[in-house]
Parts: sequence; C-alpha cells; structure tokens
Amino acid sequence: MNGVAALQKVSPYRAIRWEGDVQGELILIDQTLLPLETKLIACRDVETVWEAIRSLRVRGAPAIGISAAYGLVIGVRHAVDRSSDDFFAELDRIHDYLADSRPTAVNLFWALGRMMGVAMRLRETNSPREILESLLQEARDIEEEDRRMCRAIGFHGASLLEDGMGVLTHCNAGGLATADYGTALAVFFAAAEQGKRLHVFADETRPLLQGARLTAWELMQWDVPVTLICDSMAAQVMRESRIQACVVGADRITANGDTANKIGTYSVACLAHLHSIPFYVAAPSSTFDLSRATGAEIPIEQRPEWEITHGFGKRTAPEGVVVYNPAFDVTPAKYISAMITERGVIRPVDEKNIRSLIGQS
Amino acid sequence: MNGVAALQKVSPYRAIRWEGDVQGELILIDQTLLPLETKLIACRDVETVWEAIRSLRVRGAPAIGISAAYGLVIGVRHAVDRSSDDFFAELDRIHDYLADSRPTAVNLFWALGRMMGVAMRLRETNSPREILESLLQEARDIEEEDRRMCRAIGFHGASLLEDGMGVLTHCNAGGLATADYGTALAVFFAAAEQGKRLHVFADETRPLLQGARLTAWELMQWDVPVTLICDSMAAQVMRESRIQACVVGADRITANGDTANKIGTYSVACLAHLHSIPFYVAAPSSTFDLSRATGAEIPIEQRPEWEITHGFGKRTAPEGVVVYNPAFDVTPAKYISAMITERGVIRPVDEKNIRSLIGQS
Repeated sequence: MNGVAALQKVSPYRAIRWEGDVQGELILIDQTLLPLETKLIACRDVETVWEAIRSLRVRGAPAIGISAAYGLVIGVRHAVDRSSDDFFAELDRIHDYLADSRPTAVNLFWALGRMMGVAMRLRETNSPREILESLLQEARDIEEEDRRMCRAIGFHGASLLEDGMGVLTHCNAGGLATADYGTALAVFFAAAEQGKRLHVFADETRPLLQGARLTAWELMQWDVPVTLICDSMAAQVMRESRIQACVVGADRITANGDTANKIGTYSVACLAHLHSIPFYVAAPSSTFDLSRATGAEIPIEQRPEWEITHGFGKRTAPEGVVVYNPAFDVTPAKYISAMITERGVIRPVDEKNIRSLIGQS
Repeated sequence: MNGVAALQKVSPYRAIRWEGDVQGELILIDQTLLPLETKLIACRDVETVWEAIRSLRVRGAPAIGISAAYGLVIGVRHAVDRSSDDFFAELDRIHDYLADSRPTAVNLFWALGRMMGVAMRLRETNSPREILESLLQEARDIEEEDRRMCRAIGFHGASLLEDGMGVLTHCNAGGLATADYGTALAVFFAAAEQGKRLHVFADETRPLLQGARLTAWELMQWDVPVTLICDSMAAQVMRESRIQACVVGADRITANGDTANKIGTYSVACLAHLHSIPFYVAAPSSTFDLSRATGAEIPIEQRPEWEITHGFGKRTAPEGVVVYNPAFDVTPAKYISAMITERGVIRPVDEKNIRSLIGQS
C-alpha cells in the first residue's frame, strides 16, 4: 500500500479508540448526538458495544467492523480462566450476539469472521489467555489497516486537487465512518496537509442530514473551510463557478464502474457533468463487487416514509402523503472522472482499468 | 384571455375569500399551520390582515396583493361617514400601513396602487360610501382577474401534457399563492379535469419545505396522485423514467427568457435537460420583466442561516457553521422547453416570441 505517510496530522477526533490492554475499554463517539454534543461512550461490557452498533451511535461499514472486533475481546475476556472448550463456547456465543447487532452490515461479519479465524488457528496450541491477547492484536490490526487504507486514499486523491479549489461532497464519507480519516474526506484532509487551500461545500444530504450533522462537523474539527448548502443548491453553486471538483464515497462499485452511493450522489454527478466539473469517487478496494457487471444489478433499498415526513422530530408533510424514499442511487461510470482507491487512481473508469488495479478478473 | 372555462371544478379550498358586503370579512387559510391544521382566519380589522401578510399566513405574490386590496376596504370602512377629506386621509394612512407589511412584495404595491387609483378617480364625484362600494368591487375584480389568469394558464398548459404522464414540480406554484388554481399546479388541475391521469412528483423544496407542506397538500385536496420526494431524489426518479415533464412557476422572467424561481429550480432544469425531459415554466404575463435583458441582471437574495441550520425547530448543523442560502436561482432560457402564460404558450423560448406575446417591445 502506497502513501501511508500522506497524512501526518493526528485526527482531532476518533470515532473508535481502544484504551489499555486486554482489560481495557472501547471508547466511541456517540454519533447520534453530533453535532450538538460530543459525548464519548466507554464500553466495558459487550452489551454496551452491541447497543452502540444497533442504535447507530457508531456507523459506517469500517467503523462497525472495528467496533465489533473489539467487542469480541470485551465479551470473552471474563472466560479466560475457563477450559479451552468453555472459552470457545463463550466465544461462539459472543460472536453470534454481536453478529445480530446490524444484520445487514457486511463489514460486521467480515471483521468477526477474521477474529474467529485467529482464535481457531491458535485453539490447539495456545491457552485462552494467549488467544485473548492475539484477538486484541487482531482487532488492533483491523483498525490499523483501515487507518492505512484511509491515509493511502487521501494520498492518492490529494494529487487530483489543486490549491484554491472549491470542492463539493455529498453525505458523510469521513473519519467517523472509518478508523480515522475517512475516504472522500481523507482526500480533503491530505490536500489541506499538503498546503492546498480548499473550500469545501457540503450538501446537507436529506433525508438524514449526514452532511449537515457529520461532514460539516468533521471539516470544522480539521479547520478545513466548509460551507453548508441544501442539496438543491449544488447546481447554483456550480453555476457560480465555486466548484472545481466533486469527491464522494461509495457503498458498492460494479465491474464496469457504476457506483451505488447515498441518494443524491447521482444528482451531483449529473450536475458536475453538465458544468464540466470533475467528479471523483473515493473508496477502498473492498467496495468493488466485480461479481456484478453493471449498476442495473444493484437492488435499490427503500427506506421508511417517516425519514421524509417526520425527519426533524415533527411532521412536515400531510397525513397520508405517499413518499418515495430510495436509500441510494447508482451513478453510471460515464459520469465518473476517476476513482480513488488505496492502491491508486483508476482513470479512465472502465472495466479493464478496474480489474487491472483491483486484481480480480 | 382564452380558456377561462378550462377549469370547471370549484377548488376544494381557497386561500382567500371575501364574505358579505362592505361590512363583510376576509377569510384566509393560515398557511403557516398547513399541512397539520387547516385553520381559517377571519379578518375583521386591518391589523389582522397586516399580521397575516407579515407572518406569511398568506403568501405568494398574487395572494398578497388580493389580501391587501380587501384589507384596504376593511381598514377604511369605519371612516365612511366622515368628510371626503377625512375619508381620504384615513385611506392614505391605511394604504401606508398595509404597504409596510411586506416591503419587498411587488404585487402588494401594485394592488394597493390600483385600489388608490379607483378612489382618486371617484373623489370629486362620489361619496365615501359610494367609493367604499367601488373599492370592494375593485378588490373583487383583482381577485377574479387572478382566478381567470390561473384558469387560462391551466388551459394552455394542459395541452402540453398527456394521459399517463409522470410530472415533477418544485416549490409551490399552487392555488394557495393565488386567488384559486395557481400557475404550475393549475396546469395539473386542468389536465386532470380533462381526464388525463397524471402522477405528480413533488420536490419537498428545502429549506422551507413548500413542496412537502403546501404542494403535496393541494394535490391531495384535488385528488391528483402525488408522491413526495426529497430534492436530491429528482435525478433518480427521472433516471427511472417516472417523469415525462416538469412544470414550475416563476418569480421573474427576463426579456430573453431566463427565469428566476425558488432555489433548486435550476437544478431540476439541468437534470431534465440531461434526461431529455421537457421543462415548462408556468407564469402570468405580469411576471415578465422585459426591462432586464438576461438573468445576469437579476440580483440573488440571500436568506438567513437558520433556515438551513434550524429549519425544523431544532439545530441540525454544527454551531458556527458557515451557510450559503440563496433564495432563488436563475434557469437559463436554453433549458426551458416552453413558457405557459394566460395568453398562450411561448415556444421556442426566445426574445422575439416573448415580446410578441407579452406585447412590450
């Protein structure tokens, strides 16, 4: 992985932090209270970790996976003086419990599976106490790999931005969703650290306002100038020549480069195309799903009506109104100028270049 | 004016209604309570009219003008038994008072000026009592002309829509903003009355949610099928081939056809252009400002930050965040397929066709 030294600055906040040895604690930022309050949750029992994941106090695929890995350490440490069989029975139980916290989160299963693999490999040769130490180390490794991935994305992406640019992002692909720097936001942080003065416009991102609540907050913590706008204002801001590049994250990318991301991303891509502004997607290689040929194969999840009709604690639409609330949209590869991964930049975005860098064919 | 008979159906609600003779009352829907509550305000004194305009209980340029005209009748009727000089002194005072309710509303001054003109013409020949009767008649005429204008726009616009179409609108250009049927929404109402089955998608229209609060409500009252979406979803809905036409209102149209309207309109026009969907502007001829050559001459009003940071009664963005909140944007004529006025349809949209129909050169 290249560019791990791109970001020197220590992030002014960390969504996830482990403190101490195997008897230590997992410290999370309660993201449901941001930006009004920056409250830390100290998790010393597995129930607290489970509830934090379930209630979206920690969110974002990488952040959930890392939290669950530490949660497994917390959950099983009380059984470290039992027999190996009893220890593994408890490990299985805690694994299943944590896996149930967000049933659809792929990273959750991936991280828990990786932790279980470590334990199984050591089962015949090591004591539960030694295995617990190895589990903590594995959780630390998962976290550190994610941090290096973010920094590498920042490094590669920063080369696409120039001093004085106005840039636009949508939703939150920031440090709160990862071990540290984020994906799209890591690009801005790395560029800023290189002395490039950027001005970021953050779409508020209806219906759940991740841009207003989380992205604006993160950029302010990093002292990167940010202006909050409503989603409907992006076109006008582009027309006023305030935007020279767009950078967004991704939920899933198919073999041809079609990209699923938060609803509204496709709108930004259309507007960038029409205003001849480069549109970049920043995402780790794990986001690519090369088993799917195009975005047409990605099902679009529908979200509850109340997110639009009651999004702010009170009803703002007529009783009984019909609502359409797709959770994400698919941006066709033709509108994506380049993709920024931890392995480098894919440009132009096509199947050949994607398979070449992502390494599956 | 053609097509006055296009809409036969009586609107299921009226934002403004006068009941009785010169001693009657002005009945307004309190639009600040919609859609949660349909509360009527009975104005029997001019202070209540003033407060209703000031507090946006009645909104929309035509609706404000009509309300102020009736407000003048209400305000001056107590002076009808005084001398002519005393009556006119009171008329002046009430005029100035009402003109101060929304200092930037052009229709307010236009309607009040028209009322004052009637009074001045009759001053030498008629008694205050007769003049009061004429003022009420003039207010009724202003209201009725607006109603005919809306119906004619509906008639001309309906010819552009076909049975089975999905149509998209932004903000609220409906009956609540006019005497009755609205402008953009009159097109939908008239098409529906002709038996064309439409499905309307209403942008919620951040920051003030006129689409969610008012447009969705109006369409439901008319039994026109409507689906509410966030502004950021319009592109996706277009991509799914659910939209065959867009119809919006206008705040001001310059000689070349550039159109100022609620922020987000330009975004819809861009997206319609990119998806090859016709984009129509529905507006009365009084909206055209032929003294301005292009949209570049229209200043863009900035609105308060709290509309974005506290739009729903609670803070949803970080303390101290910078906000950009333009009240409207300008859609260039090149993205407008046709303009629908009470005098007919302008197509293609260019200065020659505009001056030809709007009748100024």
